[in-house]
Parts: sequence; structure tokens; C-alpha cells
Amino acid sequence: MAVPTFNRKDQASVNTMRLLAADMVERAKSGHPGLPLGAAPMAYVLLTRFLKHDPKEPAWPDRDRFILSAGHGSALLYAWLHLAGYELSLDDLKNFRQWGSRTPGHPEHELTPGVDASTGPLGHGFAMGVGMAMAERMMADRFNRADFEIFNHHTYALVSDGDLMEGVSSEAASLAGTLGLGKLIYLYDDNQITIEGSTDLAFTEDVRSRFLAYGWQVIVVTEGEDLASLHTALENAREEGERPSLVMVRTKLGAGSPKENSAKAHGEPLGPEAIRSTRSFYGYPEDQEFTVDPRVYEHFQSLGESNRNIRADWWDRLQRYAQAYPEEAAELNRRLRGELPSGWTEALPVFENGSVATRAASGQVLNSLAAKLPELVGGSADLGPSNKTTIDDGGSFGVLNRGGRNIHFGVREEAMGAIVNGLTLSGGLRAFGATFLVFSDFARPAMRLASLMSLPVIYIYTHDSIGVGEDGPTHQPVEHLAALRAMPGLTVIRPADANETSAAWQSALTRRKPTVLALSRQNLPVLAPADYPAVADGPLRGGYILSDSLDGHEPKAIIIATGSEVSLALEAQKLLAEEGHRRVRVVSMPSWEIFDEQLAEYRDEVLPPSVEKRLSVEAGLAMGWAKYLGPKGRSVSVESFGASAPAERLFLELGFSPDHLADLVKNL
Amino acid sequence: MAVPTFNRKDQASVNTMRLLAADMVERAKSGHPGLPLGAAPMAYVLLTRFLKHDPKEPAWPDRDRFILSAGHGSALLYAWLHLAGYELSLDDLKNFRQWGSRTPGHPEHELTPGVDASTGPLGHGFAMGVGMAMAERMMADRFNRADFEIFNHHTYALVSDGDLMEGVSSEAASLAGTLGLGKLIYLYDDNQITIEGSTDLAFTEDVRSRFLAYGWQVIVVTEGEDLASLHTALENAREEGERPSLVMVRTKLGAGSPKENSAKAHGEPLGPEAIRSTRSFYGYPEDQEFTVDPRVYEHFQSLGESNRNIRADWWDRLQRYAQAYPEEAAELNRRLRGELPSGWTEALPVFENGSVATRAASGQVLNSLAAKLPELVGGSADLGPSNKTTIDDGGSFGVLNRGGRNIHFGVREEAMGAIVNGLTLSGGLRAFGATFLVFSDFARPAMRLASLMSLPVIYIYTHDSIGVGEDGPTHQPVEHLAALRAMPGLTVIRPADANETSAAWQSALTRRKPTVLALSRQNLPVLAPADYPAVADGPLRGGYILSDSLDGHEPKAIIIATGSEVSLALEAQKLLAEEGHRRVRVVSMPSWEIFDEQLAEYRDEVLPPSVEKRLSVEAGLAMGWAKYLGPKGRSVSVESFGASAPAERLFLELGFSPDHLADLVKNL
Repeated sequence: MAVPTFNRKDQASVNTMRLLAADMVERAKSGHPGLPLGAAPMAYVLLTRFLKHDPKEPAWPDRDRFILSAGHGSALLYAWLHLAGYELSLDDLKNFRQWGSRTPGHPEHELTPGVDASTGPLGHGFAMGVGMAMAERMMADRFNRADFEIFNHHTYALVSDGDLMEGVSSEAASLAGTLGLGKLIYLYDDNQITIEGSTDLAFTEDVRSRFLAYGWQVIVVTEGEDLASLHTALENAREEGERPSLVMVRTKLGAGSPKENSAKAHGEPLGPEAIRSTRSFYGYPEDQEFTVDPRVYEHFQSLGESNRNIRADWWDRLQRYAQAYPEEAAELNRRLRGELPSGWTEALPVFENGSVATRAASGQVLNSLAAKLPELVGGSADLGPSNKTTIDDGGSFGVLNRGGRNIHFGVREEAMGAIVNGLTLSGGLRAFGATFLVFSDFARPAMRLASLMSLPVIYIYTHDSIGVGEDGPTHQPVEHLAALRAMPGLTVIRPADANETSAAWQSALTRRKPTVLALSRQNLPVLAPADYPAVADGPLRGGYILSDSLDGHEPKAIIIATGSEVSLALEAQKLLAEEGHRRVRVVSMPSWEIFDEQLAEYRDEVLPPSVEKRLSVEAGLAMGWAKYLGPKGRSVSVESFGASAPAERLFLELGFSPDHLADLVKNL
Repeated sequence: MAVPTFNRKDQASVNTMRLLAADMVERAKSGHPGLPLGAAPMAYVLLTRFLKHDPKEPAWPDRDRFILSAGHGSALLYAWLHLAGYELSLDDLKNFRQWGSRTPGHPEHELTPGVDASTGPLGHGFAMGVGMAMAERMMADRFNRADFEIFNHHTYALVSDGDLMEGVSSEAASLAGTLGLGKLIYLYDDNQITIEGSTDLAFTEDVRSRFLAYGWQVIVVTEGEDLASLHTALENAREEGERPSLVMVRTKLGAGSPKENSAKAHGEPLGPEAIRSTRSFYGYPEDQEFTVDPRVYEHFQSLGESNRNIRADWWDRLQRYAQAYPEEAAELNRRLRGELPSGWTEALPVFENGSVATRAASGQVLNSLAAKLPELVGGSADLGPSNKTTIDDGGSFGVLNRGGRNIHFGVREEAMGAIVNGLTLSGGLRAFGATFLVFSDFARPAMRLASLMSLPVIYIYTHDSIGVGEDGPTHQPVEHLAALRAMPGLTVIRPADANETSAAWQSALTRRKPTVLALSRQNLPVLAPADYPAVADGPLRGGYILSDSLDGHEPKAIIIATGSEVSLALEAQKLLAEEGHRRVRVVSMPSWEIFDEQLAEYRDEVLPPSVEKRLSVEAGLAMGWAKYLGPKGRSVSVESFGASAPAERLFLELGFSPDHLADLVKNL
């Protein structure tokens, strides 16, 4: 591909993008004009000359992905989506940042057509893109055939200083280098200005050398206004097959405005005078907002022509593929629809006896499912052997094995979270990430984005309490169940045994939002279906009567427990019965969120309002349990940090023994 | 300093450290023998030939700091502390990882003498060290005089692959390079093994080039057993004045054991056979555990001699300093004791009227306090102008200004959290870090360590609700107050106005643990003392009657609110009074934690058990409010993610209006 001669139409298009963005911010009296003014040229060249996409089908599976990692530049993205012909009108642009609009302050996936990922928290767009580029290789490996190239697309992002300062981008960049993601291409808006002033204040590193060290190709464009140089740089990036590319583009924040090169251009409207002078600088009538020359629309329209053909060809190809490879095509369609294969639940193991850690049970379930669900991929932040997350015959994803289903994330929990978001956003994959529950703190920003986007990712968080034992308080989660339950849209499941773990996987896979599986390090007695018939389907309802009042009458007291504490509750129930207190019910409550979704009738059946003596037992904070306990309820909980000691000792010291529970129930 | 000739005593000392560590793990049946076996030589050379310290005074202010960032290697640290003469007996070592011992699984500050920071969550030791190195320069700048060098010490750490993979270390390393922290020296245990296998799986980056790109000096030691090479490398690191140094030391995980160079050596005891063969490899009786040759003790004792003299000299110097510079010495002593100057509270402003965002009020309070409290230093993760955290005449901390009190952390919330931990651990400083409340998620791992160590750091988290407005859901905290209140040992204060903000700073500065100030973006009416006398000291009690029943009788209903919702509650109270409902009390509850610390009598006075009609009003999750609401209480809350729109609109749409609150109170 030769470098095209960019002409006045191109320049007019760039300037229209700039001014639309500045006008949006001005009208909203809120937003970020600086990035759009400076980065419009690179965005223009990338989005009109390289990006494979079609506004008529924003979800086209083999489209190139584009992520505005510097999400505060949303106005630029919306201006382009509008001009390119996505379903985003000039009125939508005028409604920027207003209640109910499709043009929110930061890009939101699913709300605005053409937005491939929600961004805003810096660094996360960068890291999600790495997941998308991995997904592309995985899908290509699974579905492409010598005569049919079904997946072959690039992942692009526009990233800022802030993105590169955030640790998550370092984590993701290092992994992207190791994995040789040659089709990952990032434009870096190198404007040398941060909110507090010059990047010299806090960011003097040699970005180029740093990325070379990660194994990236780095290309420098010294003049961010030069469309031809930008084109050449992107072409060189595309020609590189083995390394991700960072194209560093020297720009001016707020270019063409009176606030050019000043932090003041970053995050507030230019103001009435400055915007007039900016319009005038770019040759537009200074008092006319939201101006688009019809020739600019036409120009964008004609630039989209080849992409429309490429998309049509792709669908033709897919049809022929379906004839040549009907099984693969059927699987592909199923996976792209986000459906599970029929009969998949048959793969879920049932455990009849013994004692097994729920993390180990989870490993067994995962391996059982992996055979039926080729879309299941994931891994751990270097704790695979502890998290039990290895798919035994899955192979390791790497340069030489694009079909590998085990991902070695390294000790990088936050990037892992972002990468599973990217894998999931790509379509056709169900991704999981694993670490110790206590280190979910590191992944929280990514989990919040997953929750906001309703991505059905699965977090396998093991070592879920003081049961961690000797590793001590830095490794023992205490507040994490509460903190995760606090996150809107996230489901937390803490299974009591191997069978509940099997059910937890079933729930996680069928839900259309993210799920945490909180799993024990230590062995737990299996709740055999023969002894506890309710375990067969109760866990799928979030909470259920595991063992009812032993004399068949309405219970006088209820012990509600989760995870490793359920077996303690059962033992306490037995102790109480031996002392003649036979009307004690044990409710297992693996998931608040799922239980809360049940009909009130069911919930009242499990927790009858008439039974006021209630004890919650969970080796974590009591915070939030009040909703199940009522005015007379009590909690056995852990309210401060743990300690380094064998787990059995810790449970005893902190009051988690059947004797103690039985005493508490008697005293209710 | 010439390279000493290392002899058999040195080698015996190294091997004793190794085997003590391996024996500890073996006896505990839990722990990490791999790192101690491989890293003992570098630890030995650093700790016996470079580290300025004295076991007789572990808190000596001008000691060198040493952080075992790879905290799982704790047994190595304890072995050295024991041999060096710290108060840690052989019995303590034998009690490794047991209930109540001083040798927990990961190093814990204050629990074990000589442990400068709690470590375990990888990357955080690395980043805390950066804060310590900054603190050293700050203290030197403030207190050293031409004729008196009071502060001049190094900060060392031992870091692992995992530390370098974590994003927080990238953030901190980049900042350390920018800040030219020449007295920061890290030993990197480059063993090329991670838990999941070879580092090739996930970590093929060129670490050397990466750190050069950050502006570090990098020194490579190819043979980690070679004490002389290690000595030379450390000497070269010490000679470098302007750049931090990374000494990369090629080692073998589990060196000398049958599991050498295998991931199996990392995190579990060697086992009875392997430990025997390891003892034998190092020339020790294979069945004898915890063996220390008396000559090894003597050797350590003699190596400590010069340090004892250096410490004695330092105290002499300080005495002479106190005569020459009595004011400085008095300030230094006060600051090292962690005391505030008498009369400091006089600097707290009182606000009489108007309307001001609590973030702006906080900026005013901070500046007012800064004049009285020279120990107050800190900054923002590149949001200073928004967080209002600039100390106006404080200058920016940097290479050319070691007295600068404003720290530009860059967009690095996690490293900021770790660095304020390091600044605080150093002694003599009160450090704060700032960002938007929603991005507290990024800092959470650091905040947890601060809470665990009871460090009195201050987090200034502004834009504390949907009041963020147009920036939308990625920038609007919803679950964050709940998630932070969940963290043991952390205090959250959400002031209702400027005067409560002043009080919040007072509480934060007097508490000996970390405090979050959650502050509004938007203006809030000042609760003038003339109108609300209780505002004068009520806020210091966490919760108080701001405006009581308007007819002087016992209230029939209580509205409990925090932060920006308090003024709404007051308006609702007025509306209700206009309709004849005059027995409504408004309680402002800026801090649960502080209120919970009050005597029951006081708490019952504020929230009389007899008044069951209670409404909590907070623009965040209701989770946890139940404890103040009782069986009949209700919450006005935000249970799902926000949206991009002007703040006023969002508050209205989500039910935060005086009208709606008044209706709810009537319906209670």
C-alpha cells in the first residue's frame, strides 16, 4: 500500500473532527477538548485508512478493534463515529454528557454503537486491547483453515501519558511482548502535558526504550499533524508481524486553541472566546457550532467503501466455510451468540463422598467442562498450581501455540483482570482469571469495568479466608467478600463443598455478568447428595435449606453459613441435637446475589420471617449480613486482620468451632 | 573501600543463614525455602558489609532501611536478624509461622524487631522503599546543616521476579528515576523461576533495558554465589549518587537442594530427605536442625562492631546539633515521636458562611495546617488541581528541590499508596495521597498494608459520589465508601461541609492509623456555627445531633446523613416542619468508625433506641447502614452504577431531593 496523497478534504475532515469535539465539550460545559484537538490527525489516519470496520454492523466479528484508552477524549471518538456513519446523530453529539444520551462523558460499551470497550480508568483500555489481540489469535487458531481465513484483524488503541504511567499498562505491555502479539498497534498521544503540568514533573522515563525492552516495535512520529508520516508509521506497524507496535506521536494538547500546550486545555471547555478563536484558526466561521461541510460527510462515506466490500466478502466466505466445515461453523456461531452447547451440564461432576478443598473440586469441574466448552480459556496470576486452574490438556497460550487455553498471566492481577475483559469483549470466548482472594484488591479496577459492562467473566479466587493459615494476614482475606459483594453487578459465590462448587460453575457460566468463585484452600467434607438431597439444586438458588430442623417441625433457630463454615454449622446442629435442641435449621448461602434474585416466597421459605433466632457464620466481615439476620440475629465473623498460624488453630482462636457456634445458638 | 577477602567464616555464615531458613520452613511444615537458599549470599553481603544498622536500636532514625520485598522469603530475614543479634532467639525461629510467634509467614512491621515494613503482596516492598528514599532526602534537606549531617542513609530492598512483574513496581521505578533517588539500591534475585515454571512463560522482557529506560543504574552479577562480585556490585551502586540502582543477581532457586532450579523449591518445605541432602551439600550434619556454630555468632558480632560505633557517633552528633540548632532539634525530636506541635489546632479554619465544596475547604485547611506542620507532605496522582491538594508555598519535590512538600505522583494511584506508606514508615513525616474516590480501587492493596501496619497516612479522595456528574459511571464512586469501611483499621470520614472538613483533618491528624477523607466535588452550604452550634465539636465524635427536633421534644424520626446529603436532610427537615412534622432530628454521621468508638451512652443519646423511624441518606451503597437503622429503618442510597449527566440531574433522578426524603420520612 502506497502512502496516499492527503488533500484538503482530509484536512477538512480532521478539523471537523476537532471542532465537533470542542463544540460538544463547549455545549455540555464539561469535558476534555485538549486530546481531540491534538490527536485528531492520528485518529483520522488510523480510523479512515486502516481500521477494518463497517458502521452498518458494529459487531462484525472480524472487524478491527479500536479502543480509546484515553477515554476522556470521548468527544473525538463520537465525532468520528458520527462522521463515519454509525448510528450517532448530530443531535446525539449535541447531547454530549446529558442524562439519557448516547454520548456519555467516557465511552461506554453497548450504549454507543462502535464503542468496543468502556474506558476512563487509565491503563485499562491499553490492557483490554492485549486481551483482544490474544482473542484474535485464539479464534484464528481454532477456526481458520488453510483455505478459509475467518479471523484476521488488528487491535488498535489510542493511549495517553496517563495510560503509560499506570502500572496495569506495564503489566500488559510486558505480557504482550512475551506473547508476540504482532497485530496489536497502539498510537501514543505524546503531548508531554499532564493535569499537574509538564510530564517532566513525574514522567521522564524513556518510553521508547522501555517498550523496546518489553519486546515491542517502537516507531516515532515527530510531527503529529503530518498525515503522511502517520500513515507511513501505521503501515510499518502493520508490516511487523511478531512484535506489538507502539507508535509514539508527538502532539500538542489543545492544538490550534489559545490554550495549546497548556494543562488548561485538558479537562474543561475552552470557553466562549477561545473556542471562537480555535474555530477561526481552523478556517471555520467563528460563531458557528457543530459545522459539518456536506463534502466532509461524502468524503467519509467514500472512504468507507472498501470496508463495506471487505465485510460483504467476509460473510460470503463464512457461508462457504459453513459448507466446507459445518461443525466448526456451528461451533463458531454458537460461541458468537454466547450460547453454551446443549447438554453441557452433563459434564458437571457430582461428588459422592470424601473431603476435598473447593479449589481442588473447582479444578476438577473446570477440566470436566473444558472438554465440552472449547471457548473456556484462562489462567492464573502465577498461582496456577495453587488455584488449580490448569486445563490439563489445554496447552499454554504462547507464540508457538495460539491454541493454548492456559494463559500464564505472570504476577499481574490487574492486567489479568483487564485481559479477561478484553478476551470476553472480543466474542466467542469465556475467560477466567485466578489468584488468591486477598489479591482481588489488585484486580478491582478491572472487575469494576467488567461489572459495568456486564461481561460474563469468571474469577477463581482461592484461599478465601483465614483458612490460608501460615502465610498470615497479608495473605488472609477478611474484608474481601464484603468488598466484592458491594460491587454493583458482580456475583459472589462461596461454595460449601465440591458439589456446591460444581453448581457455582454452572451458575457462573449461565449468568451474563461477572462472577467470583471464592474457594477454600483447605479440605472440606463433601455434602453427599445421599445425605443432603438439597445439594442437588439448592445451590443454584443462592441459598437453601441444607439440613432442616431434625424433628420435622418449624425450626426455632437458623444457622446461615457459607463456604468452609457450612460444615461447622452442620456439626453445631448435631451437637445441639445431642443436647436436645433439635429444631435448628442450617441454611447454606453460597451467593447473596443469586438468593436475592429468587421470589420472595422462596426466600421466606428458606428464612421464615417468624424465626428470629438467626446466626450467620462466615470467616469474614459481618458487614451486610444484617439483611438476613433481622433484629435479633447475630454473626460469627472476623472483624480484624488474621494472623500467621496453622489454619485449624486460627479457626479455633477466632471462634469458629462447632462448640462455640452451638453455644451461641443456645444464647440467641 | 576495598573488596574484602571473603573467607570460610563468611561462607559458613551464608550457609548458616540458608540452613536456618530451610529448617524453619521444615519444622513449620510451611513456607518458602527456595528464595533463602538462592539469595542468602547477596543478603549476607548487603546486610553484613553495607547495611548501617544496630540490633540494639532497631528504630535508630538514620539507619539504612532494608525491605524484603519478596516477603515470602521471610525465613531468610529472620535467620539474619537472629544471627545479627536482634531480639529474636533461636526459639523464635523454631516457632516460625506459629500462633503468637514473632516470626510470622511474611514479615510484619512492629511485630518483629528489625523489620522495616510488612511485605508479602508483591511489588509493594519495592514501592514503599521509594517512599523511604524520598523521606531520607526530605529529612536531610530539612535538618542537615553544613556542619551536621543528621540524615544520610540508604534504602535497600531484595526484590524478586514477581515484584518486577507487578505494575506497582513499574510505577514506583519510573517515579524513582524521575526523582533521581541515588541512595535507593535494590538487589534483584534473578532466579528465572516462577510458581508456574520458567519466567519464559510470562516474563521475557529485558529487565536491564527497562530499568535503564526508567533512569536507573543497572549492574549485573552473573554468579550469585560470588561474594566478592556481589560486594563490588553493591559498592558501585553506592558510588552512584544520581540514579537508583538495580543490582541484578543471577541465582538458583533452592540452591544446593535437590529441588534446585525448580518451581517446587519455592513454596513448600523441602521434605525430610531433601533437607538432609541440602544440609549435607553445605557440609553440615544431615540430621541436625537449627545448627549454628559459635564461631558464626562471633563472626556476626564482630562484623557489627563498626556500625555500633557509627550509631554512637550519630547520637553524639545529635547532642551537639541540639546545642547548635535547638529549634531544629526540638522539631526533629517532636516529629520523630510522632507528636504534633502544641497549639496546632489553632490553625484549623472556621467557616462562617457561604457555600464551598469540601475538597476546596480541604485545600484551605491543608494550607492552613501546612504552615504549622512542616512534617505534612504529599500530593496527588496527577489530579492536584481537582483534589485541591497543593501546598501553595510548598514547592515541588524533585531532584533540584529536596525540600519540596508537594509530590507529583503521576497517574499512579497504587504506587502513590505504597509511597505514602514508605514516607510514613521512615518517621518524622505525615504523608497524604490524593485521587478521585472511585480510583481508590487502584490504591487498595497499599491501603490494606497501611491499615495492617496502623500507619497514620491520610487519603484525600475527592469527587466522592454521583456528584461527579458528567464524567459518568467510570468516575462515580458508588460502592467505595462501603468497600473502604469494610477494611479493618481504616477510618473513613465524609464531612458534610467546610467545618466538618476542618474537623475531619483534625481527626485524621490525631489518629494513629490511616484515614480517608471523602470529599465533594460540588459546593455544599456551610453549616455555620452560629446556626448549628453542634458543628463545633460534634464532628470529632463521628456522629452527632446537627439539628434536633424543632419543638424541643424527643424526636419521632431521625434522618442520618453524611457528606453532601446532610444539607438535603436539613432541607427535608424544614419541609417536614412546614407540614407540621416538627419532631425530626438530623444526625450528621461523618465517620462510622469514630462514632462506633464513642461510649454507648453518647451513641444512644444521638440515636435513642426508642426512636425506630430512621432514614439513612448517603449517595452510595446502603450496605452496612443497617447497624444504625434498626428493624424499621430505611435507606436512600445508590445501588447501581451512576450515569453521565449534570450532577443536579443525577441527584434528582436517583431520589436525592428534599421532597423525596420528606415523603420517605412521612411514610416510615
